[in-house]
Amino acid sequence: MSLVPLKDDLPSFLDQYLPTTAVRNAPQKPFVTLTYAQSLDSRISKGKGLRTTISHPETKTMTHYLRYQHDAIMIGCGTALADDPGLNCKWAPADNPLRTSSSPRPVIIDPQGKWDFEGSKMQQLFREGAGKPPVIVVRDLSSILRRHPDATYVSASANSAGQFDWLRLMLHLKSEFGFESIMIEGGALVINQLLSRPDVVDSLIVTVGAKYLGLEGVEVSPPSGEVNLCNVKWWRGTVDAVMGAELESPQLPWQ
Amino acid sequence: MSLVPLKDDLPSFLDQYLPTTAVRNAPQKPFVTLTYAQSLDSRISKGKGLRTTISHPETKTMTHYLRYQHDAIMIGCGTALADDPGLNCKWAPADNPLRTSSSPRPVIIDPQGKWDFEGSKMQQLFREGAGKPPVIVVRDLSSILRRHPDATYVSASANSAGQFDWLRLMLHLKSEFGFESIMIEGGALVINQLLSRPDVVDSLIVTVGAKYLGLEGVEVSPPSGEVNLCNVKWWRGTVDAVMGAELESPQLPWQ
Repeated sequence: MSLVPLKDDLPSFLDQYLPTTAVRNAPQKPFVTLTYAQSLDSRISKGKGLRTTISHPETKTMTHYLRYQHDAIMIGCGTALADDPGLNCKWAPADNPLRTSSSPRPVIIDPQGKWDFEGSKMQQLFREGAGKPPVIVVRDLSSILRRHPDATYVSASANSAGQFDWLRLMLHLKSEFGFESIMIEGGALVINQLLSRPDVVDSLIVTVGAKYLGLEGVEVSPPSGEVNLCNVKWWRGTVDAVMGAELESPQLPWQ
Repeated sequence: MSLVPLKDDLPSFLDQYLPTTAVRNAPQKPFVTLTYAQSLDSRISKGKGLRTTISHPETKTMTHYLRYQHDAIMIGCGTALADDPGLNCKWAPADNPLRTSSSPRPVIIDPQGKWDFEGSKMQQLFREGAGKPPVIVVRDLSSILRRHPDATYVSASANSAGQFDWLRLMLHLKSEFGFESIMIEGGALVINQLLSRPDVVDSLIVTVGAKYLGLEGVEVSPPSGEVNLCNVKWWRGTVDAVMGAELESPQLPWQ
């Protein structure tokens, strides 16, 4: 499916939140953009495993514009299993036609190795030269029974709840693969962990769709409690709003 | 506390959602505006009974501007007990100074008669001539042990879960008190019931504050599932966005 055109005023709105143009606070780590679309009631889907349209096609174009600006695109295995996403980039500037190198490299957070590259849309796009092969982040390399030759596997330490040491992981992804920028698209488990990590996340870009998905939907809300934002700006689309922001670091008691 | 000035572009944005200027679909019932402020993660407070600042002071001014346009203002008893709100109107046009009549009449949804007008901020404002005395909606008039002489009590049928027959209640409030317009400000129990009632709610005005309140907060999300909206517009404030919309009637199977 082709994209609708990028809205004229989106690039200038997004400018301060992009790895290529934002002020970088921590140059030793990759620039991390956390982005997702939610309903007003902060649901990213109607239910577990259900693909749900939340926003206008123009914000899909925005997502591809964002992908164009990042070296890597990260999702959790729940999203990979539920949506079978392509994760490639379908947007390019008018003077620079799309090529494989325009797409970010997929990074799948898959502690227990549940997702299989074989037969996925990502594999199909890779074969067609329209996407890159994934990096799969697991907890224990020896537990991966079937390794796909085109995928790259890395191990990262995670606690018993499956939470990775996110900062260490980002630093590792930069040193091993040269990723200067990583865009994180979901799902809820990953987003909810990272909302309380201003040391990891540089930019937050949230599309708010003008609908409710209801109590049974898959929810974004940080379990750690209140999260304040700074450098907030809003963009108005045809029916949605998009918020750009940065996570505010909590004031430490001695500050 | 005095209000910050009303933002210049708010009245024209709000125009199509106000009882005085909107197209009225059902003139036999009062015009009902549902309005509240939420965090990005759809919380209206940090926890039960906790007053929480979600949005910029300019949206507080908007709330008073909205109150000015309505005959009555309705809240649930949970909000009345937790916040002890004044519910009067502190905004008036420059050429029309504030008076008691500028304030909407409070309507408290209080099935079991838990809230007491005596000693409340509403009573204080009423005594000062800065607010009107409330109408208290209970399930069973005979169960109200202590009636306050300045409050008016009405009974309305509710099911065992404490849910009122909302449409019937609105019609009754119009016929008994002449309310042509009712603004509903919360709390979550009332909002969540009414989000699935396009036959009752004419306008929806939601302020989205640029913060997260976390999983333990008091949540707005319709238990009935997906709710679509129409005639959507967004306003951008200093740090918040405000959405105006109407609830879309679900397509019936035979339509």
